[in-house]
Amino acid sequence: MFKVNENYLKLPGSYLFSTIGKKVAAYQAAHPDTEIIRLGIGDVTQPLAPAIIESLHRAVEEMGQAETFRGYAPDLGYAFLREAIARNDYQDRGAEIGADEIFISDGAKSDSGNIQEIFSTDNRIAVCDPVYPVYVDSNVMAGRTGVYDPARETWSDVIYMPCTAENGFSPEFPAETPDLIYLCFPNNPTGSVITRERLQEWVDYANKIGAVIIYDAAYEAYISEENVPHTIYECGGARTCAIELKSFSKNAGFTGVRLSYTVIPKELKCGDTALHSLWARRHGTKYNGAPYIIQRAGEAVYSPEGKAQLKEQVAYYMKNARVICQGLKEAGYTVSGGVNAPYIWLKTPGSMTSWEFFDYLLEKAHVVGTPGSGFGPSGEGYFRLTAFGSYENTVAALERIKRL
Amino acid sequence: MFKVNENYLKLPGSYLFSTIGKKVAAYQAAHPDTEIIRLGIGDVTQPLAPAIIESLHRAVEEMGQAETFRGYAPDLGYAFLREAIARNDYQDRGAEIGADEIFISDGAKSDSGNIQEIFSTDNRIAVCDPVYPVYVDSNVMAGRTGVYDPARETWSDVIYMPCTAENGFSPEFPAETPDLIYLCFPNNPTGSVITRERLQEWVDYANKIGAVIIYDAAYEAYISEENVPHTIYECGGARTCAIELKSFSKNAGFTGVRLSYTVIPKELKCGDTALHSLWARRHGTKYNGAPYIIQRAGEAVYSPEGKAQLKEQVAYYMKNARVICQGLKEAGYTVSGGVNAPYIWLKTPGSMTSWEFFDYLLEKAHVVGTPGSGFGPSGEGYFRLTAFGSYENTVAALERIKRL
Repeated sequence: MFKVNENYLKLPGSYLFSTIGKKVAAYQAAHPDTEIIRLGIGDVTQPLAPAIIESLHRAVEEMGQAETFRGYAPDLGYAFLREAIARNDYQDRGAEIGADEIFISDGAKSDSGNIQEIFSTDNRIAVCDPVYPVYVDSNVMAGRTGVYDPARETWSDVIYMPCTAENGFSPEFPAETPDLIYLCFPNNPTGSVITRERLQEWVDYANKIGAVIIYDAAYEAYISEENVPHTIYECGGARTCAIELKSFSKNAGFTGVRLSYTVIPKELKCGDTALHSLWARRHGTKYNGAPYIIQRAGEAVYSPEGKAQLKEQVAYYMKNARVICQGLKEAGYTVSGGVNAPYIWLKTPGSMTSWEFFDYLLEKAHVVGTPGSGFGPSGEGYFRLTAFGSYENTVAALERIKRL
Repeated sequence: MFKVNENYLKLPGSYLFSTIGKKVAAYQAAHPDTEIIRLGIGDVTQPLAPAIIESLHRAVEEMGQAETFRGYAPDLGYAFLREAIARNDYQDRGAEIGADEIFISDGAKSDSGNIQEIFSTDNRIAVCDPVYPVYVDSNVMAGRTGVYDPARETWSDVIYMPCTAENGFSPEFPAETPDLIYLCFPNNPTGSVITRERLQEWVDYANKIGAVIIYDAAYEAYISEENVPHTIYECGGARTCAIELKSFSKNAGFTGVRLSYTVIPKELKCGDTALHSLWARRHGTKYNGAPYIIQRAGEAVYSPEGKAQLKEQVAYYMKNARVICQGLKEAGYTVSGGVNAPYIWLKTPGSMTSWEFFDYLLEKAHVVGTPGSGFGPSGEGYFRLTAFGSYENTVAALERIKRL
């Protein structure tokens, strides 16, 4: 008789955003005339930039002609895209990353969920708390997290690094020694950043203890301040300890287009085994490349027109971020994030829990946000709003919140 | 100090088609003027059908307008596609499968590699021999296959079901009891099929021993004969024992477009645990849906125009299959497959091994095929050619082979 992967059964409840989706759908069904504004899930709302649309049409046209039709893509991605990424996102910034160290994929969610698979199940993971749920959940599924404590909402074998107002939402080195360290900056959900000096300390720490940093830089395009690193490879020594995950979802509005990449430098090794070759083997065995037309869309992100149009798109969302920050402050909330990130992190009023505030905001203002506790125990008493709505909706939502 | 997944290190050599790709590239580099014809990898060559191109353009246009732009897709796929599949591929054939039992994904390779993850690592797998390499390799990576015997090229904990000329390339029930049974019909690599009666016996067997059949029906569109089942759900009892994998790669030429689906009936359970909910949890945690525009392309496959155009495309490739079968027979080869499948399986001449014949064909005829032994030990002495080339190249390749 077949048996299931018992680790799956340990997962408490469903994926955070599925839960929110169901709650909102139920509320909408009960109040069909209410106009709900969604500033919850980090999903973009602006249409694809003209340069990208043009590139997509052109690639579709190629697929309809025998001479230019393309079948299976190279496992690790087309050279035209990998080279554009290496040049624009790394070499032009002085970070030494080659095109052959870049793996094209269909999303940072897929990669951040799958990357743990190339490591031993004995490895200890360390995560920020609060944190994007996929890091922990994918490790639960792999059996790497021990026993769940429902009261504390933590796993016995996970090292949590609290990020709260007290430490400026920047994690400290943990007391226990981790093997894999998940870091995400600009941070989801808190919207906080890390300085180049502090990130260098993390790189030095990882090299010293023999850990791998899995660095999620999905929100890099939103960095507006100096001294905030755009990639972990700005730090000396990162090539021997860091994997970087990048997404096209937030800088180019690709949440429904699906494109991302992962960087694994060839020097990153365990003994003689290069992680690069393990990930290449996974890609070659369990994946068949991102669609050709989507990879051409990715290429357009780096064209002069694409760059200019996307700079405007990011500016549009960051204007929303300012509306949210300012509105919340006027309404008396304690707010952080929103300067180098599209996320605004606020303290819930009084002694309200995160989910109480979720219900309160949904019922009284018809605004959807994300409960901080959904990202981990240290997120309790916090709440996330995103700048990815339309400007009009964002202004309207804040008017509603200010009236509460 | 971090450690890697040791199971990855057990994998012998690289993925079959990567090896072939490297060998062909090396030969081409050494003989730059030689015109090589590739009938190796099962990659299509005909451009996308006009109905699909039109649908792609329309969807691209939608993504460029604020009113019609789409962000994150539903985790399990858009209803318009899941409903078209349920109706056309199942209900119209009398197979009782609902839209909510269909999971949209980016490729049958991804799904056939990832599906093992929802099962216990203790489960024993049974595979046909020869077989598509992904089934075994993904189980090796998960630590489910025991010790590799390089002399026999087999794993101690895998149950192999030989498919050779002696049994008409149709597996017999294994002596040992499996938990997961991988079946693929029309078969890759042998091009053989299974009768409805025989598949019913497999379903009954699986239900009796409490095993799950993972049924890969990627080549279903090539079935030309009566009494060959188009889906395992034509068999009574399949809803309690079978998962079906389907691809758009071969029926619609989507190898570079990337779209597929997996069916998990809700009755398929281990105790109280529905495999449907485990796979939904995996999709929700480690995947973010197929691109909207690609799902619209999938929808067009089921439009009246799409159906008519794709019927012609399949007929084009099957004409190639006849050219190959007939040409090989004229040249004195023993041949099977090619009637309900785009693959032709031939016996290598004399005592030549599969790889010797690969080199011989590459060097003497400049034709690339796939060595049967690459699919498993019982594939030794066999060789696979595909009908996915252009008609002109296929005719030319067979002329070259006949001249040998």
